[in-house]
Amino acid sequence: MVQMGKNKDFSEWYSWILKEAELVDIRYNVKGFAVIRPWAMSVMKRMYSVYEAELDAKGHSPMHFPAVIPESNLTKEEEHIKGFGGDVFWVEKAGENRLEERLALRPTSETAMYPMYALWINGRKDLPMKYYQSGTVWRYETKATRPLIRGREFLWIEAHCAFPTKEDAEAQLAEDKGIAETVIGDVFGIPFLVFQRPQWDKFAGAEDTYAFDTLMPDGKVLQIATTHMLGQNFSKPFGVKFSDTDGQEKHVWQTCYGPGMARIYAALISHYGDDKGLIYHYDLSPIQAVIVPIYKGENKARLDNYAEGIMRMLKEKGIRTHYDSTDNTPGFKYNQWELKGVPIRLEIGEREVDANTVVLVYRDNRDKRTISSESAATEVEEAGKAMFERMKAAAFDRMRNAIDQAETKDELRIKIDEGRIVRVPFCSIGPEGKPCYDILKSELVAEVRGSLFGSRDRPNGGKCVICGNEANEYAYVARQY
Amino acid sequence: MVQMGKNKDFSEWYSWILKEAELVDIRYNVKGFAVIRPWAMSVMKRMYSVYEAELDAKGHSPMHFPAVIPESNLTKEEEHIKGFGGDVFWVEKAGENRLEERLALRPTSETAMYPMYALWINGRKDLPMKYYQSGTVWRYETKATRPLIRGREFLWIEAHCAFPTKEDAEAQLAEDKGIAETVIGDVFGIPFLVFQRPQWDKFAGAEDTYAFDTLMPDGKVLQIATTHMLGQNFSKPFGVKFSDTDGQEKHVWQTCYGPGMARIYAALISHYGDDKGLIYHYDLSPIQAVIVPIYKGENKARLDNYAEGIMRMLKEKGIRTHYDSTDNTPGFKYNQWELKGVPIRLEIGEREVDANTVVLVYRDNRDKRTISSESAATEVEEAGKAMFERMKAAAFDRMRNAIDQAETKDELRIKIDEGRIVRVPFCSIGPEGKPCYDILKSELVAEVRGSLFGSRDRPNGGKCVICGNEANEYAYVARQY
Repeated sequence: MVQMGKNKDFSEWYSWILKEAELVDIRYNVKGFAVIRPWAMSVMKRMYSVYEAELDAKGHSPMHFPAVIPESNLTKEEEHIKGFGGDVFWVEKAGENRLEERLALRPTSETAMYPMYALWINGRKDLPMKYYQSGTVWRYETKATRPLIRGREFLWIEAHCAFPTKEDAEAQLAEDKGIAETVIGDVFGIPFLVFQRPQWDKFAGAEDTYAFDTLMPDGKVLQIATTHMLGQNFSKPFGVKFSDTDGQEKHVWQTCYGPGMARIYAALISHYGDDKGLIYHYDLSPIQAVIVPIYKGENKARLDNYAEGIMRMLKEKGIRTHYDSTDNTPGFKYNQWELKGVPIRLEIGEREVDANTVVLVYRDNRDKRTISSESAATEVEEAGKAMFERMKAAAFDRMRNAIDQAETKDELRIKIDEGRIVRVPFCSIGPEGKPCYDILKSELVAEVRGSLFGSRDRPNGGKCVICGNEANEYAYVARQY
Repeated sequence: MVQMGKNKDFSEWYSWILKEAELVDIRYNVKGFAVIRPWAMSVMKRMYSVYEAELDAKGHSPMHFPAVIPESNLTKEEEHIKGFGGDVFWVEKAGENRLEERLALRPTSETAMYPMYALWINGRKDLPMKYYQSGTVWRYETKATRPLIRGREFLWIEAHCAFPTKEDAEAQLAEDKGIAETVIGDVFGIPFLVFQRPQWDKFAGAEDTYAFDTLMPDGKVLQIATTHMLGQNFSKPFGVKFSDTDGQEKHVWQTCYGPGMARIYAALISHYGDDKGLIYHYDLSPIQAVIVPIYKGENKARLDNYAEGIMRMLKEKGIRTHYDSTDNTPGFKYNQWELKGVPIRLEIGEREVDANTVVLVYRDNRDKRTISSESAATEVEEAGKAMFERMKAAAFDRMRNAIDQAETKDELRIKIDEGRIVRVPFCSIGPEGKPCYDILKSELVAEVRGSLFGSRDRPNGGKCVICGNEANEYAYVARQY
C-alpha cells in the first residue's frame, strides 16, 4: 500500500489522491479542462443538492440561462469587461458560418441575466427577485491550473438577487454568509473566514466583494465562495428598474453569490483526507459502509450468506452499503476502501458468524469494536455521524489555531512562513492602502485577504505593519492559492 | 381570464403557456437560445433527480466531462463527423489568442468521453462501465426552433456504457427501455412507443437507433429520448479495448442513451395542460397545494390565523404549500393558480372557519368537496395522487386510441391527416426501404418512425403501402416535430 504524507508535501498528496482514488483525470486533451470521475462527482452532486435545498429554503428559485453571451452584452458594464475580457473563450463560427456577432462562453452570468431581469422586473411586487443557476462557467486562466481549484472550466452555483433598496441588498450579503455557515460549515464541515476584500481585489463591476476563505493543509488559503454587493453598477447600464410605491422609477440594488462547488469539494477532501487516502463524510459518501468477509478455507458460502443478511438490514435503514466479495485478500480490500474513504468498515469472519456479531472499524482512527448483528444498522449510523462530528471539530480547531496576529513586518513574515493567517494593523483596505499591499506582496509573497466581514475590528492607535502610519483597520494576511 | 384552446390550436396554446405561466422566455438575444424560468426549472430539476436516481439504481454513476471537444477528437469517427460537423459551434479564440486547435462546443459527448474510456478500461474487471452526465449540449439547428423542443442549446442526460460482448450491449438497450418505462411512463405519466429507427434515420455513427416517441396533442410525434447500439464503431477508432478472460485483446461494445429532459418536460406540460393553463403533477409541482382565503369585511385576521394553522399541518407532512394572502380577489387568485397548474386548491371562508373545515378543489375537473381541517394533509395527498393517476390513465388512453393501421396509401393519408400514428406494411426499414420512404415523405409529409422495438411484428403476405412489393415488416408512420 502506497501512502502519501499529506502534511509533508500536500501538493504531492493532492495530485496523488486525485489520481489514486479516481477522482479527477487530468489527461483530457484540452489544457486546463479535466474530467471529474464518478467517485468525486457522486459526492459533488450530493453537495449541490444540499446547497440548492438551502437556497430554496431561503426563498431562491432555480433557473437556466444559456451558456453563450453576445459580445454586446458582455461589454455593457465597463469595469466588468475590463476584468473579464481577457479571460473569455469566443465562439466565432457555427457549422461553416461565421457568426455576425461573436458569442462568449459565459465567464459568469451577470451580463446574460440582467437584460432579462430588466424585462421581468416592473413593480415593487416583483422584488425581491432571488434566482440561482447551477452549472459551469469558463475562463481562460493563464495562471498554472490545478484540478478542481483553478481550471478553465469550473462548477459552481451563481445566485443573482435584485432588491428595491440598498439595505435589502446588504441583508442578502448577511444571508449569503448564513447559508455558507449552514452548508459549507455545518454540513460539509469546512471551516472558513469571511472577509471584505480590499478594493484592489474585488469582482469586476462590484462595489464590494466578500469572500469565504478556508486554510488548506499547506498553510495557503483557498477562496471557496464569494458574494458581491453590485449596488446599481449593473442595474443602470442594463436598465433594471421598478416603479416604487412612491411612484418613482428606481434602479434595483443587486447582489450575486457564487459558491465554487469544485473548490469546496477540493477543500473537503483536503481537510478530511489522511496519508492512507480519502475520508468521506458519512452523509455524503457514495458508500457509507463496506462489508469485508475474511474468507478462510471453505467458509465462503457461510460468510456470504451471513453478510448478505447484514447488508439487507443496513439497506433497509437506507444505508448505502457495499459487500466486497471479490477474490482479493482482506488486507488489499482494507487498503482499497481506506484509500476510497468509505467511513465505516464491517469485518466478518468465522468468529463473527458464530457469535452473531460484526467488527466495526472507523476509517479515521481505525478503532475497532465488536457489535451485535441486530444493532448493526443503528451502530453504523451512530458511528458514521460521530466520526464526522469529531473530525469536523478537529478541522475547525486546526483553522482556529492557525489564526494569529503580528504587530511588525518581521513578525508577520515568520508567521506567514509558518502557514498562518495573520491579523495585522493595516493602513487601509481602501484604494489608499494599495501601495502598502504592493510592498507586502512583493516582500512577503502574501496577500491581504481583507478585513473580517461584519466586524468593527479597528486598532486603537496601532501602526500599519508596512508603512508605520496610523492603521485604520485590522487586515488578515496569508499566502493564497 | 384569457383561455386558450389547446386542442383547437395547439401551437398557439404552447406559445401561450410558455409565456403566461412564466416557463420559458424567448427574448434572450441569441437566436435559438432560451431562458428557462423558475416555474419550469424547479420541475425540471425534480425530473432530473428522478431520472438520475433510477440510473443510479441500475448501476450507473455520474461524472462530468468538459463542454469543449478538440476538433481532432470529433473527426475521428467518420460517420459521426459527417452527421454532426455542420451543427457545431466552434470556439476559435480565447482572450486575444487564436487557439492552435479549435474546440467544438459538444453536440454530444462520445468523442470527448471515449478517449478517456480507452484509458480507464483495461481488463474485463473494468466492465461493464456505465456512466452518465447531466447537462447541456449545443447544436447549430438550422430548422425552425421551438422552445424546449428544438433549440440550439438543450438539456439532457447522456449515459454511455461499455460492455465485453454484444449481448451485454443489447441487454442495456432493453434496460434503457425499462428505465424510460419507469421514469417517463410511470412517474412522469407520459405515454410513448419505442421504435427501431429506419437505417436512414439513425444516430451518426450508430449501428442502430431506438427512439422513444410520444404523440403530442396536435397529432405530431415528438422524440423524447433515444438509445443507440454503437457496436464497435467508436471503440475501434478510439481504441477502447480490454484483455478478455481468454487472454485476447478485444474492443468493447457500446451503447449510449439520451433522455431529452427539456423535451420530456415539454411533453409533460402538453399532455397535462388544459385551456386554463398548466396542470402540474402532484409529486413534481413546486407548490402542491395553494390556500386561498375568501376575505369578507373584517375577517382577515381570523382567516389568516386559521389558514396558517392548516398550512403548518400540511408543511409538517412535507406538502409544499403556499398561502395566497395578497389583496387580489379570490377569482383572480383561482385563475392565477390554475394557470400555474397547482394541483390542489384549498378555499377557506367564514363558513369553513366556523365548521373547522376547508374546501378542496381539484385542478383538473375543478370538483370541490368539503373536508375536515384535521384530515387536510391526508386528503390533499390522496387527492393529488388520485388526480395524477386519473390524468395519466387518460393520457395513456388517448395515445393508445390514436394508434391505428392502414393497408393502402390513401387510407394512410387519411389517418395521418387525423393526427394518428399508423401501422402499415412496409417493404423495409433497412437501406432498401429508403426509396419508398422518400415517396412517403414527399407525398404525405410524414415520417417512418420505424418498427416496434422488441416485437416480431411481421406482416403475413402483406404488401408495402408505397411500392406494393412484399412487406417485410410493419412500420409506424406519423407526422413529427
